[in-house]
Amino acid sequence: MAQIETVDHELTSKLDTMQGLKRTHACNALNQDYTGQEVTLCGWVSRRRDHGGLIFIDLRDRSGIVQVVFSPDVNKDAFSKAEAVRNEYVLAVRGMVKVRSESTINPNMATGTIEVFGNELRILNSAKTPPFYIQDNIDVDEILRLKYRYLDLRRPEMQQDLILRHRVTKSMRDFLDKHCFVEVETPILTKSSPEGARDYLVPSRVNPGKFYALPQSPQIYKQLLMVGGLERYFQIARCFRDEDLRADRQPEFTQLDIEMSFIDREDILSLTEEMIAYIFKESIGAEVSTPIVRLSYDEAMARYGSDKPDLRFGMELIDLSGVFTDSGFKVFDTVLANGGQVKAINVKGYANAPRRELDGLVNFVATYGAKGLAWICYTDEGLKSPITKFFSQDTIDKMTAATQAEAGDLILFVADKPKVVAAALGQLRLEMGRRLNLIDPDKLSFLWVIDFPMFEYDEEDKRWVAMHHPFTSPRDEDVEFLGNDAGKIKAKAYDLVLNGIELGGGSLRIYNRSIQEKVFTAIGLSPEEAVDKFGYLLEAFEYGTPPHGGIAFGLDRLVMLMAKRASIRDVIAFPKTQSASDMMMQAPSEVGSKQLKELYIKSAVVAKNKITPAVE
Amino acid sequence: MAQIETVDHELTSKLDTMQGLKRTHACNALNQDYTGQEVTLCGWVSRRRDHGGLIFIDLRDRSGIVQVVFSPDVNKDAFSKAEAVRNEYVLAVRGMVKVRSESTINPNMATGTIEVFGNELRILNSAKTPPFYIQDNIDVDEILRLKYRYLDLRRPEMQQDLILRHRVTKSMRDFLDKHCFVEVETPILTKSSPEGARDYLVPSRVNPGKFYALPQSPQIYKQLLMVGGLERYFQIARCFRDEDLRADRQPEFTQLDIEMSFIDREDILSLTEEMIAYIFKESIGAEVSTPIVRLSYDEAMARYGSDKPDLRFGMELIDLSGVFTDSGFKVFDTVLANGGQVKAINVKGYANAPRRELDGLVNFVATYGAKGLAWICYTDEGLKSPITKFFSQDTIDKMTAATQAEAGDLILFVADKPKVVAAALGQLRLEMGRRLNLIDPDKLSFLWVIDFPMFEYDEEDKRWVAMHHPFTSPRDEDVEFLGNDAGKIKAKAYDLVLNGIELGGGSLRIYNRSIQEKVFTAIGLSPEEAVDKFGYLLEAFEYGTPPHGGIAFGLDRLVMLMAKRASIRDVIAFPKTQSASDMMMQAPSEVGSKQLKELYIKSAVVAKNKITPAVE
Repeated sequence: MAQIETVDHELTSKLDTMQGLKRTHACNALNQDYTGQEVTLCGWVSRRRDHGGLIFIDLRDRSGIVQVVFSPDVNKDAFSKAEAVRNEYVLAVRGMVKVRSESTINPNMATGTIEVFGNELRILNSAKTPPFYIQDNIDVDEILRLKYRYLDLRRPEMQQDLILRHRVTKSMRDFLDKHCFVEVETPILTKSSPEGARDYLVPSRVNPGKFYALPQSPQIYKQLLMVGGLERYFQIARCFRDEDLRADRQPEFTQLDIEMSFIDREDILSLTEEMIAYIFKESIGAEVSTPIVRLSYDEAMARYGSDKPDLRFGMELIDLSGVFTDSGFKVFDTVLANGGQVKAINVKGYANAPRRELDGLVNFVATYGAKGLAWICYTDEGLKSPITKFFSQDTIDKMTAATQAEAGDLILFVADKPKVVAAALGQLRLEMGRRLNLIDPDKLSFLWVIDFPMFEYDEEDKRWVAMHHPFTSPRDEDVEFLGNDAGKIKAKAYDLVLNGIELGGGSLRIYNRSIQEKVFTAIGLSPEEAVDKFGYLLEAFEYGTPPHGGIAFGLDRLVMLMAKRASIRDVIAFPKTQSASDMMMQAPSEVGSKQLKELYIKSAVVAKNKITPAVE
Repeated sequence: MAQIETVDHELTSKLDTMQGLKRTHACNALNQDYTGQEVTLCGWVSRRRDHGGLIFIDLRDRSGIVQVVFSPDVNKDAFSKAEAVRNEYVLAVRGMVKVRSESTINPNMATGTIEVFGNELRILNSAKTPPFYIQDNIDVDEILRLKYRYLDLRRPEMQQDLILRHRVTKSMRDFLDKHCFVEVETPILTKSSPEGARDYLVPSRVNPGKFYALPQSPQIYKQLLMVGGLERYFQIARCFRDEDLRADRQPEFTQLDIEMSFIDREDILSLTEEMIAYIFKESIGAEVSTPIVRLSYDEAMARYGSDKPDLRFGMELIDLSGVFTDSGFKVFDTVLANGGQVKAINVKGYANAPRRELDGLVNFVATYGAKGLAWICYTDEGLKSPITKFFSQDTIDKMTAATQAEAGDLILFVADKPKVVAAALGQLRLEMGRRLNLIDPDKLSFLWVIDFPMFEYDEEDKRWVAMHHPFTSPRDEDVEFLGNDAGKIKAKAYDLVLNGIELGGGSLRIYNRSIQEKVFTAIGLSPEEAVDKFGYLLEAFEYGTPPHGGIAFGLDRLVMLMAKRASIRDVIAFPKTQSASDMMMQAPSEVGSKQLKELYIKSAVVAKNKITPAVE
């Protein structure tokens, strides 16, 4: 961390004002066309150096950087002020644009063919030395960047990310407005109905003992807007989930939320495709080819071991269960006899992988629950593998045919329960794709995954839970299985995937009270609980609810992918850390007891500390 | 309240789907140009009647209403289905557009020259009889409307209000985008710093005993974005204030929030004027003439008794303190001797106001603290008044000249402390303007109020408080009074007023640590408290903060005025009641003890009930 000076108070008291001076140009706007013109610029000192009796200042504003030169021959007063200037001082400069001499042209700078000779300088504010450099690609602890976020945001790449985010939301709104969607704001202070993630709660002062919840999504509101006849709704909405932030998540995040009435699945998918193409074109100039390919959930899981496969490369999962039936290799035979699978991927041209790396892969798949990993190297000298000895030539031939293995290929096998095979081999596929550099970072590979299961079984809670959410409609032909065979039911749900990341998802919704009640029952809500939590929705369904459906997109993730950043924190102005803290403001913070009293709550922290040793 | 039936479950189980049918037109789009064309419509049954062996259905969608006719001669099946249809059923209809016969044309209906003869009818959903009529201008208890908001929103005027709101925000975004503003989302989970209104708090699960606060405005974030070099920011932002909702307020409301760097007051005022003109033109086709007139705070108070005067009519306050000095009328003399004022309004042509009404006005001004109200009627027979007898003819002549009173005029006087005179006479002016119908509801009268006092004295708390907020810059020439004569300081603040209602306000901000510290001191924050609450801001000011300023507009109120509605609740999709409750969802609500435990809080409600009788 750089040395921190105290601010120059004497200077501060003599700061200049903008009075009578008006900015005429953005720094980056200047080029040879402006030669001889007088301009007024405002911005920050990105760099200052003395050379040959002159002072050179790189002046930075939101648009970019331009070089300003102060010479005692041009203006003595401006020159002597420039001597006092340090990095990150805030300046207004009036000066003349001049073409640089051939030898001083800077081809790495957009404005590198010109410089501005300052004849008036105003120091609008001074600055202490910042704790890190205000430039791109710095290697600084993120906590420090978050603490001084207002300095971090001065870095050009951060500003470009925020501007990109603005362009993305602007293009969303332009597109949806053109298609007759109405943006409606739904409440942030709403009702707690924890189904899925944990709610953030807000104690009510006016209603003692009662709490609002911050919305996990505007799902129910948007459905009620459809009951209300709005027909086409959207919102760029803040959502809140009080989850443990292991992954790249934030306590509050933003989603583009869309709902339509009187439509079928095709209407939503095609509208979405058109919108996505428009957004990518408008925001980053990228072409998205439509229609977007579709895979059923079952097919995605079978071929890629994932419901959000990355299609930028192949290396599909190959089911060898048939090939290895009664193979004589005990490990495979046992798995297959118990309803398991044997699947493999063919890592083309990687037969010479070092043994050490192969051993590492065993550990890799183990983190996804796989008890082992088998491998066969197809070398010029034949097959090398610890397991080929167990198989007949016929089995080996069939396997070779099924995997299309050639000399130079590495085949990796996982034999386990289908869920484990999918997770382990799906992740292994991605890992090998990365290691072999098969993934083109500039490619945009979109995919619809459709026909999701309606429910999945929660082993921990010992109950069925809705895979999307309980307002998703089951397929008409599957309604009969509600209440007797939940696992068989497919939902009218769809996810949009980009490069292996889920961008958004949605469904056609239930709009009939009795089906909604059956779904609530299926996920273990008693009729009383269902009415207590969602009575208003059930009642609304009885007053002429139109068929409707929609979709929602995670904005932070979308912008992150467009900006090619690794973390959503880079595309959020003031993000929180993994402990859900704002490092700059020091939030959350302790509050006064008067505040708590007014809200009819008490902190349980002191009491807990006292009681804990005795009780637990 | 209308009778509630139970839903027809037999019908529900046989509902039609949209399958194979695609909506082709909005109801309101149809006219004679479509004659002979086959169309498919979707919507709700607004009205259904049988006549001459035919069934007539007014089909309503978001766009409007069209008449659909079912005849057994056209399609038997469709006709017999139509017999089952009731109000608010959801239909899809395929049919042929036909011109109505001359005698059946309905000139009150946009589509009144045509009707659609249905040859296919699908009943997409049934409906119970709604608790109120789905039509404009209904006289229904608002609580009932809020409970069934999804039905209330089906009424055309409510939909038009939401669509207007969408158009307003869209035009704001279009305008600001064109002017290089970047929309940035700032956090909803932020830090509590109660200065002004009460904060809504959110207990943190990850940080036991600590709380987030919901933002009262993005004020500090937008200033930090200026420190961060964004230069031009805006946001249509949700704000939260836990206040008692006596007036037309909501716990959460929306504001258009703008901030700019390197500008002076003129830049903001002129940009705002251009934006307002654009919004009014785009959203409701209204012309706003610019530049907008300006009044200093002092002048507004002197001439209208208000810092948000309604300029749609005159009837200005006239200061008669000079006229009545040593008038001999003890009431006036005493007031003037104690630093008070005597001011009057001239209610033109109202000299024949009944005595009973004049007595009523005494009570009216009393509610604003005035101890009395004097009056003089200028009649054709001379002056009638209980007080003229106290004055010399010279005094009366001077008063007549000052008030420009003529025969037929009524002069109303208030003598009191300046604050009371302003409040009482300012309100009386508005009241008389309403009674005499002087206020043109179609006129748009914009006004800037500038040069606000920096502080006002809070008699209750016995301290100075910031009139706008403590980040507002004092005028340069007044900085020297910080710490010795707070009441003398004027701020670089401005409000935009429309028809007597404050639309928005803003200021140039402090961007210098030492001035900010002095302002915190002036409002009674100790240096420690200032650092505890706003240390990050004070620190930020030391790293090169540009001169900046901005403005914020109350969106709900703006849309309400544009829609000519009396309450902001009519332009909010899901508003809360005066007790901050959502009548539809029943929020806030009680939550499980497990939820509270996870948040390290306890409800104090039970404890309070127990303790209250003994302690209080």
